[in-house]
Amino acid sequence: MSFTSLTLAHGGGGFRTERLLREVIFPGVRPGRKPAMDDSAILPDTAGGRLAFTTDSFIVSPLFFPGGDIGRLAVAGTVNDLAVVGAKPLYLSLGLILEEGLAIETLKAVCESIHATADEAGVEIVTGDTKVVERGKGDGCYINTAGIGRVLIEPPPSLSRARPGDALIVTGMLGDHGAAVMARRESLALDSPVRSDAAPLNRMLNALVEQFGPAIHALKDPTRGGLAMACHDIAEASTVQIEMDEAALRVRPEVQGICDLLGFDVLEVANEGKAVVVCEAAAARAVVEFLRRCDHGHQASLAGRIVESDQPLVVLKTRIGGERLVAKPAGEILPRIC
Amino acid sequence: MSFTSLTLAHGGGGFRTERLLREVIFPGVRPGRKPAMDDSAILPDTAGGRLAFTTDSFIVSPLFFPGGDIGRLAVAGTVNDLAVVGAKPLYLSLGLILEEGLAIETLKAVCESIHATADEAGVEIVTGDTKVVERGKGDGCYINTAGIGRVLIEPPPSLSRARPGDALIVTGMLGDHGAAVMARRESLALDSPVRSDAAPLNRMLNALVEQFGPAIHALKDPTRGGLAMACHDIAEASTVQIEMDEAALRVRPEVQGICDLLGFDVLEVANEGKAVVVCEAAAARAVVEFLRRCDHGHQASLAGRIVESDQPLVVLKTRIGGERLVAKPAGEILPRIC
Repeated sequence: MSFTSLTLAHGGGGFRTERLLREVIFPGVRPGRKPAMDDSAILPDTAGGRLAFTTDSFIVSPLFFPGGDIGRLAVAGTVNDLAVVGAKPLYLSLGLILEEGLAIETLKAVCESIHATADEAGVEIVTGDTKVVERGKGDGCYINTAGIGRVLIEPPPSLSRARPGDALIVTGMLGDHGAAVMARRESLALDSPVRSDAAPLNRMLNALVEQFGPAIHALKDPTRGGLAMACHDIAEASTVQIEMDEAALRVRPEVQGICDLLGFDVLEVANEGKAVVVCEAAAARAVVEFLRRCDHGHQASLAGRIVESDQPLVVLKTRIGGERLVAKPAGEILPRIC
Repeated sequence: MSFTSLTLAHGGGGFRTERLLREVIFPGVRPGRKPAMDDSAILPDTAGGRLAFTTDSFIVSPLFFPGGDIGRLAVAGTVNDLAVVGAKPLYLSLGLILEEGLAIETLKAVCESIHATADEAGVEIVTGDTKVVERGKGDGCYINTAGIGRVLIEPPPSLSRARPGDALIVTGMLGDHGAAVMARRESLALDSPVRSDAAPLNRMLNALVEQFGPAIHALKDPTRGGLAMACHDIAEASTVQIEMDEAALRVRPEVQGICDLLGFDVLEVANEGKAVVVCEAAAARAVVEFLRRCDHGHQASLAGRIVESDQPLVVLKTRIGGERLVAKPAGEILPRIC
């Protein structure tokens, strides 16, 4: 018996589900390290430190794009949500909602990417669930991951801890993920294809908070809604004004080109391998230097500052010396970017 | 501005997403207890005991059925998965995948049910995520919940701890959930409508393991694949034969009627508020009496026993004294039951 595409019975919880799990979803399990069949994973004692807990669902379309795929996103996204609260990601859950008719080869490729990215991040997938919906009630594959991490420093960085005088740092080029997905979706023929930046940032961000401790006030991964939304989240949670220097923000020319072509503001375009860092001004230069030595931070730059304000505001200081208010995005300009 | 149905912008991560969260998904949040906007929840120290971690996605169709709805299922299902490993459920995550066009009133009703069931179970929803897919790429509402619980006893009950000589106990009537959903889906006109048993069992099962400790060897909620699959899971994990006494299994006549009408074996029909208990034979009578005093265990009964075997087997001792092998279900007979 062989199977090449998914049927509803694969989600029925019987032996077809078991076989799918064994052969496709968790194929790499070594004999003698069979995952417990119990309904919950029992975790080793994580003595020391509080825990962080987060969840994210991934519905990106298409499933594969230059530089990544839904599986890489699903691991990196949740790992990054833990890392930005100063936590070391330890355990992930994996919930798959699959559409009848999905090619098994496609699912295999997604699962391989999930496991490879989990290895890269050093997290363990300890529990999972698989459901199948009828053709036309899904879109190939939706993934939910939830994650548990151990908080490394107290107080942990928080969106609410930005203070007037703090520095704003961005760890790299803006808009790569959103531009890569949009270009693939619109079938743009590009001379130099843009690749998504999707990546787990936990090693870099964990090392950062361990090195600089309480000087790191806030961390944020600028995903849906891009840098504009990330800054609004910080501005609101801390009731401050955030000033970004347009000249200091880095955007690849080809990403800017895609944004211009499609009419998007790169500040609102999603990133999946970048972080915004708010830290004490005195530490800013050392933080930038530290980030530039990290795999995912070579293009880190000081990008602005936090200013006192009685209401949350985000302002862009333009290259020609003007100022413009950056509006809070209403919603992703293109849906299903992550 | 008012809104009556869901648009793609509600999933874009901008201010429309925020408003949806505030007004519909987490409406009951009291001033001064605003949930942190950070990307992960920070959990209070759960000192003492290991943690259990689980996840489940819910895709039941229809969203509402007699006795329950997808929101109640989503909380009860994950709570029960924690309870069957002997853990006290503490925290849930909530991941929503919504379809464009979903009526806001429907979403409100689902979310109210989620919060009411979480209150009933005594668990806290501490983190969440909302995505929206285009019309025709979902089916109203899919829900993922992940849960964290504290393990109450060591060693925790496990599917692998059933031993020859143990007693098999079922906490109540079989097949209520599956029959209720199927009857609603097939629009069967019934004199006495069947209601789903969907319920959080954590209070009953937590009290059980605290009362009987290591005498409780295995617990299992017989959901997809019903009692047949639950017994196969235990038989395989423990390499034992499970003997069920047909005369001791309880089924409502109207549930049996629906199964007969639609051609289903009630042993394979899903339950969402029942548990299978494997315990030391010496404790069996006391366990049944204990369960019968619990809200969700009034019809608990001794339903069989564990027998030595060199291969996993599930056997039904029929009313007329015969024996039949109970096959492992291939997959749910009707998809999308939970």
